[in-house]
Amino acid sequence: MLGLLPREKGFFDLFERAAANLRVGTRAMADLLDRFEDVPAKVEKIKAIEHAGDEITHQAIEKLNKTFLTPLDREDIHELVCRLDDVLDLTDGAASRILLYKIDAPTEAARALAGVLERSAEIIERAMKGLREIKKGENLLKLCIDLHTLENEGDRIERQALAGLFDGTLSPYDVIKWKDIYETLEAATDRCEDVANVVEGIVLKNA
Amino acid sequence: MLGLLPREKGFFDLFERAAANLRVGTRAMADLLDRFEDVPAKVEKIKAIEHAGDEITHQAIEKLNKTFLTPLDREDIHELVCRLDDVLDLTDGAASRILLYKIDAPTEAARALAGVLERSAEIIERAMKGLREIKKGENLLKLCIDLHTLENEGDRIERQALAGLFDGTLSPYDVIKWKDIYETLEAATDRCEDVANVVEGIVLKNA
Amino acid sequence: MLGLLPREKGFFDLFERAAANLRVGTRAMADLLDRFEDVPAKVEKIKAIEHAGDEITHQAIEKLNKTFLTPLDREDIHELVCRLDDVLDLTDGAASRILLYKIDAPTEAARALAGVLERSAEIIERAMKGLREIKKGENLLKLCIDLHTLENEGDRIERQALAGLFDGTLSPYDVIKWKDIYETLEAATDRCEDVANVVEGIVLKNA
Repeated sequence: MLGLLPREKGFFDLFERAAANLRVGTRAMADLLDRFEDVPAKVEKIKAIEHAGDEITHQAIEKLNKTFLTPLDREDIHELVCRLDDVLDLTDGAASRILLYKIDAPTEAARALAGVLERSAEIIERAMKGLREIKKGENLLKLCIDLHTLENEGDRIERQALAGLFDGTLSPYDVIKWKDIYETLEAATDRCEDVANVVEGIVLKNA
Repeated sequence: MLGLLPREKGFFDLFERAAANLRVGTRAMADLLDRFEDVPAKVEKIKAIEHAGDEITHQAIEKLNKTFLTPLDREDIHELVCRLDDVLDLTDGAASRILLYKIDAPTEAARALAGVLERSAEIIERAMKGLREIKKGENLLKLCIDLHTLENEGDRIERQALAGLFDGTLSPYDVIKWKDIYETLEAATDRCEDVANVVEGIVLKNA
Repeated sequence: MLGLLPREKGFFDLFERAAANLRVGTRAMADLLDRFEDVPAKVEKIKAIEHAGDEITHQAIEKLNKTFLTPLDREDIHELVCRLDDVLDLTDGAASRILLYKIDAPTEAARALAGVLERSAEIIERAMKGLREIKKGENLLKLCIDLHTLENEGDRIERQALAGLFDGTLSPYDVIKWKDIYETLEAATDRCEDVANVVEGIVLKNA
């Protein structure tokens, strides 16, 4: 009987807005490392994007609290917005560290990790659009596999980057700083995999 | 039909006991840093509080296994006690590190992080009391927002503290030790946010 | 009515295969540290085991997508295979780091952590077999307690090991390397506890 009632579709708009905002944030992160100038302004911009993300998360929770019939299980909607928020938090964390640690030049590995993160955000954006047609779950599962693959790539880049820190050219202080930045960027791609896990769970529940 | 049967209310007592114990633990952590004396005894006390927390967690799981009708979804009760346990584990982890690393004086940033943790535990305590009246979910959601705000504050303090480690006054060894302590304290406030996420999920499910 | 239909039992085979593979992986990790020779070949072997684990995870997700009636809740099956996968990922991460950091001799603490990890994998293997008889949940809950205990032991070993890094014999670089290896090994035992939490949740839901 409930199945015949209209479901509040606005949640899909919120997922898409959160994903679009995440993509803007990861784009800004990649740009920070690709064109390493005006660092304080660029870091502040990423912080503002992260605040915008918090606002979307908050709206989603408010909407869940006021909506009777949701188009996906309430807990899945909640989990999804929280996990999207985590990715952006860590992106912002990496940007902050670059400023606070007074980094004076980016590394190839940091750029590569930011590239993986940006590509992950693009796939997440496509997945959020795909949630509107949950019955075409095969496509969504393929996007999740892509996110797992990108996480593996991020992991591989991080390990090589960590190893490279010990080539004798860096002071222990710089090793500690860069290790933290690499780990924060890699953690952001890990959280993209968490998003994939939530999406997989939603697809499999509706299979 | 099941809705008319009495629900085992003892779970709310367990949540409150877990939260009260957590508050005692975070209080002891703040005290350790505020009055830095008798460090081994104070660290041992925190370890004892953590053991008491394990015992409460264990009782909750036993009770779940023996109870037919639970006042909240079984998986939410389980998740909640596990997440409360995590906060205390990390609080104990931070205390242990202070002893094991032979720290000889606390820092302002460590005190500030312990303060955020203690305030988070206070809010968690209020939230656990609020679970008894789940239909007044608005109040609970407000407490969750406070926990998110405190986590953000913890994050901000941690980042500033990490940056401050590189001012040239500390040996690389001391940088590594303090970075670990700050990260463990900040992870404890992160886990408070996980508690908030579980509470939000419970409220939204019952909205 | 649905309760009378046959349930696809092949998921239990997949859990057992995943756990058996994990045990092989943790065995290989312990062997790497116990007989520290042919390091690159041994690390590569662990990587191959990790790939085999990815394949099992992928099969489980495919099977979930094609199966109408599952023997446990779909989301629990999904969560369980993801958490098993995490343990092996971190085991592989620790092995990689030993090679990439050009470690030339293992430590007692690393061996002890690998031992805890291997024992955890043995218990997980028994728990996966036990899932076939979910109504004998008491036995499963006991195995989960064993996993919590092992995680505590891993935590204790890690803390002592971290403290030992600062005895003045190691360069800051070596402290950073070993801290990372210890933390990765300990994180793997943490993920074993996550597996225990999922199993507990399944048992309690079916209690």
